[in-house]
Amino acid sequence: MKEVKRGRVKKILSYGLDSIVVTSGSNFFYLTGLKIETFERPLLLFMSEDYSFLLAPKLEMERLGDLNVTESLFYDDATDPFKIIESTPTLKNILRKGVKIGVDPNLRFSFFYKLNNIFKDVNFVDASEEIQLARMIKEEEEIKNIEKASNILSKIFETAQESISPGISEAEVRFNLMKKASELGASSYDFIAIQSGENTAIPHHEFSSRKIRRGDLIVIDAVVSYNWYNADLTRVFSLGKPNEEVLSIYSFVRQAQKIGIESSISNVTAKSIDEKVRNYFKEREIDQFFIHRTGHGLGIDAHEKPFISSTSNDVIENGQVFTIEPGLYFPGKFGIRLEVDVVIKEGKPHIIGDFPLDIVII
Amino acid sequence: MKEVKRGRVKKILSYGLDSIVVTSGSNFFYLTGLKIETFERPLLLFMSEDYSFLLAPKLEMERLGDLNVTESLFYDDATDPFKIIESTPTLKNILRKGVKIGVDPNLRFSFFYKLNNIFKDVNFVDASEEIQLARMIKEEEEIKNIEKASNILSKIFETAQESISPGISEAEVRFNLMKKASELGASSYDFIAIQSGENTAIPHHEFSSRKIRRGDLIVIDAVVSYNWYNADLTRVFSLGKPNEEVLSIYSFVRQAQKIGIESSISNVTAKSIDEKVRNYFKEREIDQFFIHRTGHGLGIDAHEKPFISSTSNDVIENGQVFTIEPGLYFPGKFGIRLEVDVVIKEGKPHIIGDFPLDIVII
Repeated sequence: MKEVKRGRVKKILSYGLDSIVVTSGSNFFYLTGLKIETFERPLLLFMSEDYSFLLAPKLEMERLGDLNVTESLFYDDATDPFKIIESTPTLKNILRKGVKIGVDPNLRFSFFYKLNNIFKDVNFVDASEEIQLARMIKEEEEIKNIEKASNILSKIFETAQESISPGISEAEVRFNLMKKASELGASSYDFIAIQSGENTAIPHHEFSSRKIRRGDLIVIDAVVSYNWYNADLTRVFSLGKPNEEVLSIYSFVRQAQKIGIESSISNVTAKSIDEKVRNYFKEREIDQFFIHRTGHGLGIDAHEKPFISSTSNDVIENGQVFTIEPGLYFPGKFGIRLEVDVVIKEGKPHIIGDFPLDIVII
Repeated sequence: MKEVKRGRVKKILSYGLDSIVVTSGSNFFYLTGLKIETFERPLLLFMSEDYSFLLAPKLEMERLGDLNVTESLFYDDATDPFKIIESTPTLKNILRKGVKIGVDPNLRFSFFYKLNNIFKDVNFVDASEEIQLARMIKEEEEIKNIEKASNILSKIFETAQESISPGISEAEVRFNLMKKASELGASSYDFIAIQSGENTAIPHHEFSSRKIRRGDLIVIDAVVSYNWYNADLTRVFSLGKPNEEVLSIYSFVRQAQKIGIESSISNVTAKSIDEKVRNYFKEREIDQFFIHRTGHGLGIDAHEKPFISSTSNDVIENGQVFTIEPGLYFPGKFGIRLEVDVVIKEGKPHIIGDFPLDIVII
């Protein structure tokens, strides 16, 4: 039987909510272990400490029919799901006046708008913080999944090393890597960025038809998941020997990353990690080329708490998994980013994944 | 210079809104021609008849810096974007008491919640209907893009025909098709479902490691876009000669589809098209195996207005593009779905795409 993970629900509610409502996506997966996307058809799971109500499209009955909720209703395309909600007395009992309901931050505005019109007296609040605080501390099994995802990434970097040769396009390399990720059992590979030549200077560039040339630097930034838990790594390749400028920038980024990793210990603020990395660049007067945050948490989402940035309020704790990914970008020329995933265990950072951190010369 | 498409804004506002706010995704693309995804960093474009305000992450400055808005603000990761909104006087002038602001239905609840806390007196409403009504009637150029996407689909069905042989997995066929779509210049290929054998009975099955065997039926349902406009087609393949039962079900689906297409003329209700298709199955006492709606509109989203379902309020008009996709599903055995895209011109349906509608015997 498929189970609502009541321990996780309790944890979220413990931060000060009477109940929560989640929708298809990562939070639904966190609380049920079921990965479902229902697009324009609402999927809503209401949960309080001792009651749960599932509203789902009939098309998902096979996957959701045996979820152990108190009550469930499956609607077909001929029925307005919000009419069902309106006429469900037990649900009205949860969504009563004055009750504080945490809403899945990913809920579409249009669904919220309808809910809000039905339950006008309810205090709907953003449950981002409460859900993220619960999800931020990973259980053993969650960490194992991320480790497996990082193993897949190590192997696709090997595939990259074999694939890259003069004349191959960024798009073709990307396909080879996607195929490999799929063969290795990745549940998703939502982002596989192949940046070559001057494209390395654009941190968010994903891929293009640009053909890789001898002398090119190639930055590969890839997110793949195993059992829907993401790892996110970036490595730098060079087709031919890199020049002195590249090597010197690389060594700065590498050193900044080392500082970031070593600063990642229990009880420090995430902000202080970002600050130390940024200061290293500042001392060398190259901090204006580091245009993004130092890192972000990893889990069911590729970007989640803790955020390693100058504005983060997060504090480092055991069980957190996050990236350390400093980078320097010189528009029109080149860029270098190096990204590892760390897990905090017994107060200390441990690197997940074993693909070497040196520049890979092909 | 990149332009906010003011004619489209005007059209949306004409349905009774004072202004609108859209976020990254299909509506932002519809109004600016820019395809941008900013995830946890808010991208908000506020527009009234004669004023526009863009709030965007600094990372997107290169792509958004020259958009012709009245005012724009780019924030870095060290700044809370909602603090910027609070302290922008001109924006406060738009979002003033009593004003009716249509909200992008895709806006995340967490962003809306923050906006709503800043502008407590504003009347935020769901702009789903207004935006969808505008987007539903396609301009010539939009239709051309969908036609090009359907040409890509025709070619990937040819690739499927060449790829399918005993022992190949659904996942491998899918990769061949994705690669082909990419080579042919598709801007996205978000859904390429390869359903074989008993998997054809699950309408939403996407792919698996199942190896295709002689005697299998293979249903391929694919969505690809050109310039981000989607076409969505389904064709049925058979590895070896299909049996009599399959052929007879196929002919029912084909005939139902013909009825659906022929009923798609100006001024009829979308509901009546669904009803005619459903009635055809009812007369043969097989309507319980037709478990979804008859079709949906196509455009920047793969599912948009008009919806061809029994609950739809849409009316067929010139310039609409939508699918007609009846299907019959026999759990544990097999399923057949056949999907065409039609555009309404001069009151009549025209099929987009030329790949044959017969079962493809390999």
